[in-house]
Amino acid sequence: MAVHPGIVAADQAPEKPLPESLTPAEFNRAVAELRRAIGDEWVFTDDEGDLRTYRDVYSTLPDEANMPSAAVAPRSVEEIQAILKIARSYQIPLWTVSTGKNYAYGGPAPRKPGFFVLDLNRMKRIIEVNEEHGYAVVEPGVSYFELYNYLQRRGSKLWIDPAAPGWGSVLGNLLEHGAGYTPYGDHLLMNCGMQVVLADGTVVETGMGALSGSATSSLYKYGCGPWVEGMFTQSNFGIVTKVGIWLMPEPPGYRPYLVTFPREEDLYQITEIVGPLRLNMLIPNAATTVGLIWEAAPNATRKQYYRGKGPMPMRHRRKMAQDLDIGMWNFYGALYGPEPIMDNNWKVLEEAFRSIPGAKFFFEGDRPNDPAWRYRVKLMKGVPNMTEFSLMNWVGSGAHIDFSPRSPVTGEDSMKQFTLIRDRANEYGFDYIGEFLVGWRELLNIFQLIFDRLDEDERRRAHECFGHLVNDFAEQGYGEYRTHLNFMDEIAGTYNWNDGALWKLHHRLKQALDPVGILSPGKSGIWPASKS
Amino acid sequence: MAVHPGIVAADQAPEKPLPESLTPAEFNRAVAELRRAIGDEWVFTDDEGDLRTYRDVYSTLPDEANMPSAAVAPRSVEEIQAILKIARSYQIPLWTVSTGKNYAYGGPAPRKPGFFVLDLNRMKRIIEVNEEHGYAVVEPGVSYFELYNYLQRRGSKLWIDPAAPGWGSVLGNLLEHGAGYTPYGDHLLMNCGMQVVLADGTVVETGMGALSGSATSSLYKYGCGPWVEGMFTQSNFGIVTKVGIWLMPEPPGYRPYLVTFPREEDLYQITEIVGPLRLNMLIPNAATTVGLIWEAAPNATRKQYYRGKGPMPMRHRRKMAQDLDIGMWNFYGALYGPEPIMDNNWKVLEEAFRSIPGAKFFFEGDRPNDPAWRYRVKLMKGVPNMTEFSLMNWVGSGAHIDFSPRSPVTGEDSMKQFTLIRDRANEYGFDYIGEFLVGWRELLNIFQLIFDRLDEDERRRAHECFGHLVNDFAEQGYGEYRTHLNFMDEIAGTYNWNDGALWKLHHRLKQALDPVGILSPGKSGIWPASKS
Repeated sequence: MAVHPGIVAADQAPEKPLPESLTPAEFNRAVAELRRAIGDEWVFTDDEGDLRTYRDVYSTLPDEANMPSAAVAPRSVEEIQAILKIARSYQIPLWTVSTGKNYAYGGPAPRKPGFFVLDLNRMKRIIEVNEEHGYAVVEPGVSYFELYNYLQRRGSKLWIDPAAPGWGSVLGNLLEHGAGYTPYGDHLLMNCGMQVVLADGTVVETGMGALSGSATSSLYKYGCGPWVEGMFTQSNFGIVTKVGIWLMPEPPGYRPYLVTFPREEDLYQITEIVGPLRLNMLIPNAATTVGLIWEAAPNATRKQYYRGKGPMPMRHRRKMAQDLDIGMWNFYGALYGPEPIMDNNWKVLEEAFRSIPGAKFFFEGDRPNDPAWRYRVKLMKGVPNMTEFSLMNWVGSGAHIDFSPRSPVTGEDSMKQFTLIRDRANEYGFDYIGEFLVGWRELLNIFQLIFDRLDEDERRRAHECFGHLVNDFAEQGYGEYRTHLNFMDEIAGTYNWNDGALWKLHHRLKQALDPVGILSPGKSGIWPASKS
Repeated sequence: MAVHPGIVAADQAPEKPLPESLTPAEFNRAVAELRRAIGDEWVFTDDEGDLRTYRDVYSTLPDEANMPSAAVAPRSVEEIQAILKIARSYQIPLWTVSTGKNYAYGGPAPRKPGFFVLDLNRMKRIIEVNEEHGYAVVEPGVSYFELYNYLQRRGSKLWIDPAAPGWGSVLGNLLEHGAGYTPYGDHLLMNCGMQVVLADGTVVETGMGALSGSATSSLYKYGCGPWVEGMFTQSNFGIVTKVGIWLMPEPPGYRPYLVTFPREEDLYQITEIVGPLRLNMLIPNAATTVGLIWEAAPNATRKQYYRGKGPMPMRHRRKMAQDLDIGMWNFYGALYGPEPIMDNNWKVLEEAFRSIPGAKFFFEGDRPNDPAWRYRVKLMKGVPNMTEFSLMNWVGSGAHIDFSPRSPVTGEDSMKQFTLIRDRANEYGFDYIGEFLVGWRELLNIFQLIFDRLDEDERRRAHECFGHLVNDFAEQGYGEYRTHLNFMDEIAGTYNWNDGALWKLHHRLKQALDPVGILSPGKSGIWPASKS
């Protein structure tokens, strides 16, 4: 039985999981108070209606595992403070999301059933764009599309750096340590200044913003004294309500390129080549090596090439690669800058990649009918789009969770990561669908575990496969940088040096800043004292 | 009366300021316990002997204002843990220094008289250097000279990025948000991984290092979950005992240049030119505009050009500029990379700087007898040296404290910063000795307030002048990024947005992590609960 807006009675008992701290009567009273505080229409409790949009449609567990009992959508810091006051008095767990588009890692859903979602999607102000100094200040609900369109309308020469799906929150992605595809791809690095609301309602400006009338809030990162911003990322120590983000000035030139490689084992050599080129900044943006199926999916479905069960055999994959004129690995990069600099760097890059037999080169005007290439050309110059979501069509009812470990940038580590995942995925009947990105000094592997969520057996296999991968990788000294809700405790458990000293520190910070334990309990494996 | 090693008696009362928490008898007992824990020879209490090396010889206050009652110099994490146990039981304030070379900001001296100095200078291990991936892992006592020499001996092709005086601690400078002069000049940015000992003796590895057997401790910064490293910088929340630091691969080419400008008001145009060039990475390192006297001091003393009191008049300064062939402002920069790239960028830079009438250009082989130019050529390619210390010879018995505010990078802000400081300095009888550096997006002004410390009146004027500057700048929205011990409370007080919410947060963290209040009380204006 759903709770209907406006007709909540204290004795009405909703038949759904509630936070452990609340009786049904308390739930109803709390909801009524929240409605008075921020308006009836911004408190959602209808399980069959609005609340269903807060499901994680891509989870390896059933919806019920992460189904909220209510959601609240404030539009200002003052409304957040009012919500916090009610949450503290009822001990309501509030799971904060920005736009709720953190798919593959949980989307808008909370860690545990019954939690309330604190949905900041209505906070959509683009507070400032500074063309001269190259930055924007945004609220949590501002998506890459919205910031991009705003800049375009103003005729701005500043680029943004979107995550692959453009509907995501600029602020939210940064807090999750997300990355993009231009030279400003390290989103946390490009953050400058935060506003944070603590569990007790205190509003804090970090960095230079802590100086009243500050002239440099969005210009100098570290402020004075302890630099605390990092502790509010991937965290549940506060609610981030504003961030400054540096924007890249449009460069004088842009040359995207694609190099395809014919063999799986080419990954070794690609990584050996790309590592030093990235370290020496000849590749100035995300150096992305995309596996066959990831690359093919915007152009094809699995059924077109293989109707059997289990992982697609090599000979079918070879046929697909041939038809689509792509490689077993496909390296994307771009040059930015004046022509002579791009000319110089391209010479070095081309020579390096040509050393791999069978390498084929493509440039901006090539492959006009290939949506995969077209969206990469956009992404690497900061134009948001949604093409990558077509990956989900690879199998019917495609859901996915992402496995995201980091290793050193060596051929050996790349092959070890690849084969560990491929073999484990194949063992559970899944295709390897992955890409490798080289950051400053580390190799990030994103494996999209795509599965048919309507097939219960497949869903279960996906869950089990993922759990094995976490252990497989920890044994090699490889850690994940981010994970799905339902694996946060497991992955936190792999960061166990000195009896889990770092997570014990996190728990002390949690207790100091949120003693009632209302903010996103369980985020990154950090629980309030009463639950841990 | 000094306390002599080995003959400490509980009834012996040293005639010197002690920590408020200690009676003389407790002091003696604590010292005896410390001696048992780490060895007699590493606990210093002799006011007339070893302890004098912990004075701040550059303070605007008398030595007594920051004179420790004892110093302890452990050589390992285990010894730090033993010291912490004693410090907790006696409530001893332990002021941590790495090499103690943080001159102009307090050197090795503690915030308050009587504090014990925890001197980490004996922890000198270079734990790892990784040539392939470009990083080093060092303990607090490792100086720039030591790391440089170590790399040279191994024939390494990695550069370091030293602060101007090469005797400083690599780790200590990073914790203070210090900067250098190569493209890796933002030292905190180039940090990857920390080991921290908390007040209770717990050892924490941050980031990827928290994963046992981690393959990426020094390769990926953000780890998984909250990223806590920043909170241990400019802070007293823990004792940092190890850092990873990324090192720049030697570039294929290096071209340092100096451009001199004849007029004080040229600063406006220099800043307008440099801002966009830095933002667009045509200037890839610290873009440093050095004022006349800073530039002259390695080559001259004040008395050679002016024997009067008060600031040196313009006509004497002009004469000095002419004799030394330097400008009222002197811009240093360097190009790095392959020849065609340096050629391309130099064309843009030269044209830009030539637009200022009277600009003169110098290159690597020029000015063979100018030590100022020679040391800059070294610094910008990561060769540590001590030449900048000759600045102290500008006046007899030269001491200095540094005033270090940040503003936006505009001509207007640069002139406002310059004239505010110059006028206030002149009002108090001091010369303007300053330089401007453009970071990612902000203009850092370092004003060296150089004074004769043996002249008590001059010392007092220096102190008063500095205090005024803090207020002058806060009124303009300009904050300092770092400051001398004796101005930490004042400057923390300028970060007062929302009733000092950020510092209230710092105090909550302090209480959570160091409830006894033993670690560096007062650092960055953060005091234990009992003192605040």
